[in-house]
Amino acid sequence: MSVHLVGAGPGDPGLITARGLELVRSCEVLVYDRLVAPELVDEAPSDSLRIGRGRLGQQAINDLLVAYGRRGLDVVRLKGGDPFVFGRGGEEALALAEAGVPFEVVPGVSSLSAVPAAAGIPVTHRGISSQVTIAAGHDLDALDWAGLARAPGTLVFFMALTSLPELARRLITAGRAAETPVAVIEKGTLAEQVTVTAALSEIAEVAADLDPPALVVVGEVVRLEEQLRETVEPLASPA
Amino acid sequence: MSVHLVGAGPGDPGLITARGLELVRSCEVLVYDRLVAPELVDEAPSDSLRIGRGRLGQQAINDLLVAYGRRGLDVVRLKGGDPFVFGRGGEEALALAEAGVPFEVVPGVSSLSAVPAAAGIPVTHRGISSQVTIAAGHDLDALDWAGLARAPGTLVFFMALTSLPELARRLITAGRAAETPVAVIEKGTLAEQVTVTAALSEIAEVAADLDPPALVVVGEVVRLEEQLRETVEPLASPA
Repeated sequence: MSVHLVGAGPGDPGLITARGLELVRSCEVLVYDRLVAPELVDEAPSDSLRIGRGRLGQQAINDLLVAYGRRGLDVVRLKGGDPFVFGRGGEEALALAEAGVPFEVVPGVSSLSAVPAAAGIPVTHRGISSQVTIAAGHDLDALDWAGLARAPGTLVFFMALTSLPELARRLITAGRAAETPVAVIEKGTLAEQVTVTAALSEIAEVAADLDPPALVVVGEVVRLEEQLRETVEPLASPA
Repeated sequence: MSVHLVGAGPGDPGLITARGLELVRSCEVLVYDRLVAPELVDEAPSDSLRIGRGRLGQQAINDLLVAYGRRGLDVVRLKGGDPFVFGRGGEEALALAEAGVPFEVVPGVSSLSAVPAAAGIPVTHRGISSQVTIAAGHDLDALDWAGLARAPGTLVFFMALTSLPELARRLITAGRAAETPVAVIEKGTLAEQVTVTAALSEIAEVAADLDPPALVVVGEVVRLEEQLRETVEPLASPA
């Protein structure tokens, strides 16, 4: 085995998997993304090569993984969340497969349910939501708004903070009720986590001061946050 | 803190989170589901009380958590996958909140992306799928088939093995192309993992010999499995 595509989890360093942490602690090369917790980068051996992604494009990252993998080095590619949920892990996997470099995927906790959970919102809940639709909000023209507006259950949007005013407008125009509850969660699972909730028609204004990374959750499950927030405790300990 | 709702991950014991494993190792009471890896149950202290769920219903589990939580014991409720993705964690959270018992949610790796990943299938992939719809397949009458048939991207069905012939028929009747590629993954992330793939019109026959637990993945991303399966290695080590 030479390259490990590892999910670092949604933010809190304690949410990496046991297997992922073990791999980070024994790697020779660590290639990590900007949103990976610094505590996890510090877990790599002191004599390992640590490469922060910085401004490297996807092709450059692919090339790097293939190059170190071919040399037989033990490479950990540490990615925020889960490598295969809006993580572009599939592109890295294909590049490795095409180059004949053996690799392993170690899935991570995705923000899609962990971040709402940390805010007291289950994305599924008996009698309220038995379907979840996940989409990226950075290219609104690519989405099927009629379908999203009528999809039952919960909608979860990644990378949607900047486009939130237009996203809310399109959902309402396509038929989703203006009073549908929405939560926006900034820095989910971290100590600095901020959650705001409002009706779909008002969420853009209420969330205007938040900064990325943030997750947008649309649907009746958001109302559970009111019932849970007083007793649910924030995540506590680091890895 | 008294009750911790912890996701055990999709099967492989190494896919519990670092924080979750730490909590299991220090708990006084462990309440665990049938699909949780025995290796994780063995991680609980030898003098801890371990309660396998067996045939206990959801209400009985809720009552148990409230009762032990009220006594101030350190309780870990270990659930397969993620507690809040078809895990009924929200019901346990509400029961604890209503009883005034403080609790924490420690999310887990959900099968929804981890199981396809272990089979070489990314649920999102640039240019192929930028949307994922997740639904439960145990009550087909509850689902919006017209919406599912036209939803772009990837569909992931939990608990759908038994209903697979009817599920495939309804998707095709509602307009999804009969040649849409489908994967069914049994015991995903475990050494015994089995993946079968076929067109939507043929998948029920091809998957007829599989047993639960299994995940059903519908969409063009399934074709990536062919390109990845020769170089992707199965998950290796236990916790």
